[in-house]
Amino acid sequence: MTAKDFLDTNDFTKDQLLDMIELSRVLKRCVKAGYFPELLRHKALGMIFQQVSTRTRLSFEGAMADLGGDAQFYAPGTIQLGGHETIEDSARVMGRLLDVIMARVDRHEDLVELAKYSQVPVINGMSDYNHPTQEMGDLLTMIEHLPEGKRIENCTMVFVGDATQVCVSEMFICSKMGLDFVQYGPEGHQIREDLLEIGRKNCEESGGSVTVTDNREEAMKDADFVYTDVWYGLYDKELSKDERMAIFYPTYQVTEELMAMAAPDAKFMHCLPASRGEEVTDEVIDGAQSICWDEAENRKHSIRALLAALGKRTPLNDEGVEYSAKAELHAALEALEQL
Amino acid sequence: MTAKDFLDTNDFTKDQLLDMIELSRVLKRCVKAGYFPELLRHKALGMIFQQVSTRTRLSFEGAMADLGGDAQFYAPGTIQLGGHETIEDSARVMGRLLDVIMARVDRHEDLVELAKYSQVPVINGMSDYNHPTQEMGDLLTMIEHLPEGKRIENCTMVFVGDATQVCVSEMFICSKMGLDFVQYGPEGHQIREDLLEIGRKNCEESGGSVTVTDNREEAMKDADFVYTDVWYGLYDKELSKDERMAIFYPTYQVTEELMAMAAPDAKFMHCLPASRGEEVTDEVIDGAQSICWDEAENRKHSIRALLAALGKRTPLNDEGVEYSAKAELHAALEALEQL
Amino acid sequence: MTAKDFLDTNDFTKDQLLDMIELSRVLKRCVKAGYFPELLRHKALGMIFQQVSTRTRLSFEGAMADLGGDAQFYAPGTIQLGGHETIEDSARVMGRLLDVIMARVDRHEDLVELAKYSQVPVINGMSDYNHPTQEMGDLLTMIEHLPEGKRIENCTMVFVGDATQVCVSEMFICSKMGLDFVQYGPEGHQIREDLLEIGRKNCEESGGSVTVTDNREEAMKDADFVYTDVWYGLYDKELSKDERMAIFYPTYQVTEELMAMAAPDAKFMHCLPASRGEEVTDEVIDGAQSICWDEAENRKHSIRALLAALGKRTPLNDEGVEYSAKAELHAALEALEQL
Repeated sequence: MTAKDFLDTNDFTKDQLLDMIELSRVLKRCVKAGYFPELLRHKALGMIFQQVSTRTRLSFEGAMADLGGDAQFYAPGTIQLGGHETIEDSARVMGRLLDVIMARVDRHEDLVELAKYSQVPVINGMSDYNHPTQEMGDLLTMIEHLPEGKRIENCTMVFVGDATQVCVSEMFICSKMGLDFVQYGPEGHQIREDLLEIGRKNCEESGGSVTVTDNREEAMKDADFVYTDVWYGLYDKELSKDERMAIFYPTYQVTEELMAMAAPDAKFMHCLPASRGEEVTDEVIDGAQSICWDEAENRKHSIRALLAALGKRTPLNDEGVEYSAKAELHAALEALEQL
Repeated sequence: MTAKDFLDTNDFTKDQLLDMIELSRVLKRCVKAGYFPELLRHKALGMIFQQVSTRTRLSFEGAMADLGGDAQFYAPGTIQLGGHETIEDSARVMGRLLDVIMARVDRHEDLVELAKYSQVPVINGMSDYNHPTQEMGDLLTMIEHLPEGKRIENCTMVFVGDATQVCVSEMFICSKMGLDFVQYGPEGHQIREDLLEIGRKNCEESGGSVTVTDNREEAMKDADFVYTDVWYGLYDKELSKDERMAIFYPTYQVTEELMAMAAPDAKFMHCLPASRGEEVTDEVIDGAQSICWDEAENRKHSIRALLAALGKRTPLNDEGVEYSAKAELHAALEALEQL
Repeated sequence: MTAKDFLDTNDFTKDQLLDMIELSRVLKRCVKAGYFPELLRHKALGMIFQQVSTRTRLSFEGAMADLGGDAQFYAPGTIQLGGHETIEDSARVMGRLLDVIMARVDRHEDLVELAKYSQVPVINGMSDYNHPTQEMGDLLTMIEHLPEGKRIENCTMVFVGDATQVCVSEMFICSKMGLDFVQYGPEGHQIREDLLEIGRKNCEESGGSVTVTDNREEAMKDADFVYTDVWYGLYDKELSKDERMAIFYPTYQVTEELMAMAAPDAKFMHCLPASRGEEVTDEVIDGAQSICWDEAENRKHSIRALLAALGKRTPLNDEGVEYSAKAELHAALEALEQL
């Protein structure tokens, strides 16, 4: 790990991210076997939430407890970022009193500021720009559900619907890993050109591809993973039910008919929460192709690895020692063998 | 334990509930001796509160810590039940990320839904229908304060005042255990017929009785435990101070004079919080017959046993293994002997 | 330790407070070395916040985790003090369910009431009257940053600006320790006579002095520690930006020019949060003389000692045993030597 923080998967190499996934899988295996390596004993995580959360909060809090550490929850309004105190000053103070910080923020810039002035690692728990811990959980989930005989690099993900920050994040991780990524969405709700540029640059190295289209047949053919997210948009740009239905329904709803256009063994994914009857039907989300509940559980398994890898880089024990995901993995495996 | 969840004491047999009480007493003894069996190490409890709470929250959070586990507090508004996400879906996700769930809810149906779709045990932390963890703490308290020479089956509880969900709950547990239960309350504020029917059915098996009356003398004679609760009603049916005083005061206030009509050694109980000067006088609640502070403390002791008994039924280690309260008790006793 | 609670440093002798500081330093050394003596294993701290907090909350929660205990956070509005339940009754119940209580309250009287009726130690996390855990962290910070060759008793602290409760608290601890304390502030915003009287009484024993003045030169000469706090006042007496600037600016702003009037090696302190550009300039708070980030970190180190010393005085293990800070210190030192 070279970066202090985990704000964006684009700050890491493909190999670094895959190491982290490998660590996730080992730790998941440990925990399922009832063995909990307390890698973060006596470490404190501060969790800043500027918006309500279920999966992210439960995953961070649970993962931290699994590793023997302490997670502190700061609800919206209980810790100010930029009220009576500047973000700089809050970051300095929190960096003195905590070992790791995670923040779900309204504005990505605040996260960058927080990371810059805090001496401890800062993890992005979602911003208006991206959702990198969702990316990691999803990558883990895809690797666990690869089509028979395929490697992750040879897969295709089709994201159906609105270009939310989760859509952009899936484009980031797919292009980084070398998948073919397609957004199937209507004009006005497609990924911004400057963000696509980041994906295309990833593809130069990884051999993947990035496409945006509103052509149904072209989009869906060869899809190994069909992903969707809600249609109500973000924050101040929130759409009313009437508005969003007019834009997306029924064309961009993931139905059994749409799933039938994908590869035979295609899986359905969703970051959740889902608005059933809008972006997805009950038949699909509750059907045999849906892996969205595994996906939700994998949030915790991937975040646990992230905390293990980043959380040890504290002022107290980080003098010249490089903690890579690989080293953690090695220790975890060794411990597992001795069970 | 046959039921996955703890939503209603009526789902359990008398023996099962008494086993749980026995476990409560053993664990209480352990903890008072400074020995904390970490039965829930690396287990996570999620606590959903749709209403503010003091005793229930502190008891669950403290009990979980005693057992070496982690309790996550979700304040009103921080986890949605039925907002952007259906209760079904929230239940599925929480069941993947937690080991036990407790919820204090506005509508009992939501609790039933939560339990149905979550794969982990759900504990009722009070609903508009009942308050079963209060019942367990109260049963423990009564057993610790039995009148000289009497068994619990031979006791009489008189509940004075409004038919709150705590009143109904006391009727449930008393009829299940075989006590004589009397509600002394005014017409319009007496236990509903359909609920009394449940109590009567319990009595067929237990040999207890259930009575509702506004006859003071008849109600109070032979009372071993005099119980009361606030008069301001529930939720949307809340009564103003003037309204409730007009209905209940002074007839249904627990005074020294009323206590004198009960059995000589009668105890005073209250689930708290109390509105001193309304349903009870300072003399009674602060007097020698009051056991309501022990009762408050026993919330934690009984909840600790409940968590120990239910919390181990997780996907991870529950393959075909039946964890009964008795087995836990045995382990706890064995450990205690080895101190 | 003779007092059950920690509401006011004036309840303790100079030696008792210095013992606590010594314990803070030992525990800080332990923790920095990666050794965490779990002195509060299976103890529960309840943290009542009637106002938002960053430093105090993070310090208490982190310190408790360091010591192996459990900290429960009660946000404003989640635990009532004096709503449906009297403070007396809440105190009785919390005393049954917790091992230590900390409270940040609007009215100091509520804290006194809480301490009176709860059987467990209550720690003042700031009130409208004083901020004693801030005093302890500041004393630790000053001792770590003593001017070359000086003992704490020979130092001078100058507090610049408004007579906030932090200003009053600094006067308390300085007069207790024997420092010369000066408030440099405008008329109408100077420490109240009755509070100064407490400081003067402390000085009779300690040999320190207490002065209030608006004379710039007189105030600043010989200042070893220059302290300031925000100008916006407290609670219902809050001042608008225009009002406070008219009163304090630019005379009472801590600038490089003002710092130059102090002793050559003087340090700048601030309890934080700071309103940069009001009570202090960027140059001073970010400059080489500023020790306010160490000061923030020391909140946790001093609170850890306080919890260790007070937290063990619980009903469970306190039968006739006197836990002094010295005894804790001895144990910590012994453990440290065995590392």
